Amino acid sequence: MTAVTTAAAVRAGTLSARAAVQLSLSTIAATDGRVNAFTAVLEERALKRADLVDASPRRSRMRLAGVPFAVKNLFDVAGIATLAGSKIEATAAPARRDAVLVRRLEAEGAVLVGALNMDEYAYGFTTENSHAGACHNPHDLARISGGSSGGSAAAVAAGQVPLTLGSDTNGSIRVPASLCGTYGLKPTYGRLPRTGSYPFVASLDHLGPFARSVADLALCYDLLQGPDVDDPACAQRSIEPTADTLDRGAGGLRIGVLGGWFREMANPEALSAVDRVAEALGTTRLVELPEVQRARAAAFLITCAEGGALHLPDLRSRAQDFDPHTRDRFLANALVPAAWTVQAQRVRHWFARRVAKAFQTVDILIAPATPCTAPAIGTEWLEIGGQRLPARASMGLLTQPISCIGLPVATVPLWGCNPAAPHLPIGVQLIAAPWREDLCLRVAAALEAQGMCSAPIAELP
Amino acid sequence: MTAVTTAAAVRAGTLSARAAVQLSLSTIAATDGRVNAFTAVLEERALKRADLVDASPRRSRMRLAGVPFAVKNLFDVAGIATLAGSKIEATAAPARRDAVLVRRLEAEGAVLVGALNMDEYAYGFTTENSHAGACHNPHDLARISGGSSGGSAAAVAAGQVPLTLGSDTNGSIRVPASLCGTYGLKPTYGRLPRTGSYPFVASLDHLGPFARSVADLALCYDLLQGPDVDDPACAQRSIEPTADTLDRGAGGLRIGVLGGWFREMANPEALSAVDRVAEALGTTRLVELPEVQRARAAAFLITCAEGGALHLPDLRSRAQDFDPHTRDRFLANALVPAAWTVQAQRVRHWFARRVAKAFQTVDILIAPATPCTAPAIGTEWLEIGGQRLPARASMGLLTQPISCIGLPVATVPLWGCNPAAPHLPIGVQLIAAPWREDLCLRVAAALEAQGMCSAPIAELP
Repeated sequence: MTAVTTAAAVRAGTLSARAAVQLSLSTIAATDGRVNAFTAVLEERALKRADLVDASPRRSRMRLAGVPFAVKNLFDVAGIATLAGSKIEATAAPARRDAVLVRRLEAEGAVLVGALNMDEYAYGFTTENSHAGACHNPHDLARISGGSSGGSAAAVAAGQVPLTLGSDTNGSIRVPASLCGTYGLKPTYGRLPRTGSYPFVASLDHLGPFARSVADLALCYDLLQGPDVDDPACAQRSIEPTADTLDRGAGGLRIGVLGGWFREMANPEALSAVDRVAEALGTTRLVELPEVQRARAAAFLITCAEGGALHLPDLRSRAQDFDPHTRDRFLANALVPAAWTVQAQRVRHWFARRVAKAFQTVDILIAPATPCTAPAIGTEWLEIGGQRLPARASMGLLTQPISCIGLPVATVPLWGCNPAAPHLPIGVQLIAAPWREDLCLRVAAALEAQGMCSAPIAELP
Repeated sequence: MTAVTTAAAVRAGTLSARAAVQLSLSTIAATDGRVNAFTAVLEERALKRADLVDASPRRSRMRLAGVPFAVKNLFDVAGIATLAGSKIEATAAPARRDAVLVRRLEAEGAVLVGALNMDEYAYGFTTENSHAGACHNPHDLARISGGSSGGSAAAVAAGQVPLTLGSDTNGSIRVPASLCGTYGLKPTYGRLPRTGSYPFVASLDHLGPFARSVADLALCYDLLQGPDVDDPACAQRSIEPTADTLDRGAGGLRIGVLGGWFREMANPEALSAVDRVAEALGTTRLVELPEVQRARAAAFLITCAEGGALHLPDLRSRAQDFDPHTRDRFLANALVPAAWTVQAQRVRHWFARRVAKAFQTVDILIAPATPCTAPAIGTEWLEIGGQRLPARASMGLLTQPISCIGLPVATVPLWGCNPAAPHLPIGVQLIAAPWREDLCLRVAAALEAQGMCSAPIAELP
């Protein structure tokens, strides 16, 4: 059942919120030993909350009545420590309040059932977390789920919950959505408030949802919208519901396929996915953005600087407590000279202005979400675009240039693009101008309606 | 004659623009050997331009008809190299076009007569320029004019021109206005376009005018206003004329005196100036801003990072061509780690939000513009607030925290505050919330009308 169908049944009284939540909890219990998506299951809280929904006089109006959901463990959950994938934060004081986005979903009847695995401090694309163990891809347990929101994508792909929340700084929603075959939305920078979540790179951090249908994704996103005074980056914009616009289709939209870097750094399965989407949308238009590689490098350096600054006190006093996958990278980051990041910010602003010009003649740009389908857990090196590259940093090659300038992106899953592994999904990014999430979601809905994309529940062995 | 009276006479035909410009050129010729405010006098261009104004059918409507003015030599002037106080740029290609602000003033009949001395690359508060020689304070030739827009303040104080333009990154308009006894305006960050000027710290650079009367200052500022697509930081705001609001007075405005850092780092003459302004405005209200010292440090570090990055190629290839006053500072800046400037940006944003709250209950905040009156040229150390501090960096102690968050400030000159040197002026900052230049100028006009402030032409020995 999707979020939409679950909520409809609970609203109508044909399903109780308690039953919906119990089904989720039992699925988690039955599958998570193999997937390792959850770092905390909040059974008691969830059942109490479900009973409140069932007893609520507002139940028949709650848009997510009884819908179980889970969040990356960098979201504050009242009463437990916000791990952000780390060991260090385990001894921090428990959060006193749920994150704003958790509260917004629960205000509509959704029920939080747990917290999800991720790369330490969101610094990675694989969720091979040394403290919690790797999160396994539900479509092939030997492979990575992607990251850093790996648990968020895997929990949806495994059918444990219909909705999850994650964060995306350089690709951390889009990469795992691509590798696990779910829908994912990284909204415009500044659209959703981050109040009550553990930061990584304040000027690049976005929060957003994962789902198995575009209707679920759009509904969840709509209920997350709205300004919040405690996140200064969150624009004070009016809420623009998108779920009602999904049936408008992609007709009339000007769609371009990103060339250059976005094709050079994509393996055949990623190119095949994009070409299938382009054909389905009836476009042959190629769009080249300038200096994409430099925009990616800018995002990389800004991440180094802000991430390094954030963790400097702990790196000085307890470096041994970091995940070996992140420790040396954070240490190196603390040495990056400011002159480099000044230049990176200049590149970023220049690139944003150039891309804004491109959006004067196009509504949606499409590109692969990852250069390839999910590699095996433990993979150190990958062949991408004919180059041998470090696997863990390279999964974000195609997402970083886009989040660097805060554009909204929906990721849609395709199947059968990799002849060597037809069971593995790969995602395509649908990219719009700032504040046009509605266009991303409309095109995603059109592709879903055509049968081009789907996000089935994985059949675990 | 002021800009207002000169323009009125030229409009009325009782004075020709040529005569007004010739008077300015002869004053420069007679005085600049002692002041050293000018690095270029553009006699031929100026006389040609004056003749155009005299012949123009629009002359009777030009708001600065025939008014001579000069600009800090970091403004582009077509046909000459934009020095920005350096030797290095002397071999750069001549500017192809005048800076936007120069064009805006000339469109109203003003006539550019020359380019003005400054600290190299605007990095200093003294205008002891090693290439062009020090700019001398017209009120005491043995003393500094302040900087980095020292030539801009000195030219106005010496009566060479009624109007000049300068730039202010950390205090470079307010410090020389204070030490030379002129009015100066540093508008809100993003108010005036910087297109066609040599940058220093893009996120802190402001341009603005100097004058000997508030009416001249406000008129000039009004004619400079307006967006420009080529400066991305320049807000696309409508033009809000302020000159017409000057006679509204300061009555009804809520005025506070900044305490803490702004009194601790001020010598008796600076405190005396502020107290006299407070009394004239009938306020006894003390306002404490939090963490002012950290805000100043943040501005300092951001300046290091952006300034260091800007000059890195030249520092690598031709360090010996820099002014000895700036060379080592720029070199050190190139080594500042990014983690420090990330923290500085956080402090800056936090401070901006806290100060915005203070402006909910106050309209104008007042503080000294400099900790003391002008020291002698060559001074290495100063006693400020009981501490021995390096003279050159410390003249901006009280201006840096304000420009760090882009607030508009008018500086007004007072006299006789230093009993040991009654001939020396000192300035007081009138600080408003963003985009409220009108309030700064209204209060400045009220103080001028009361006779509390004035900017007489210096009598050179």
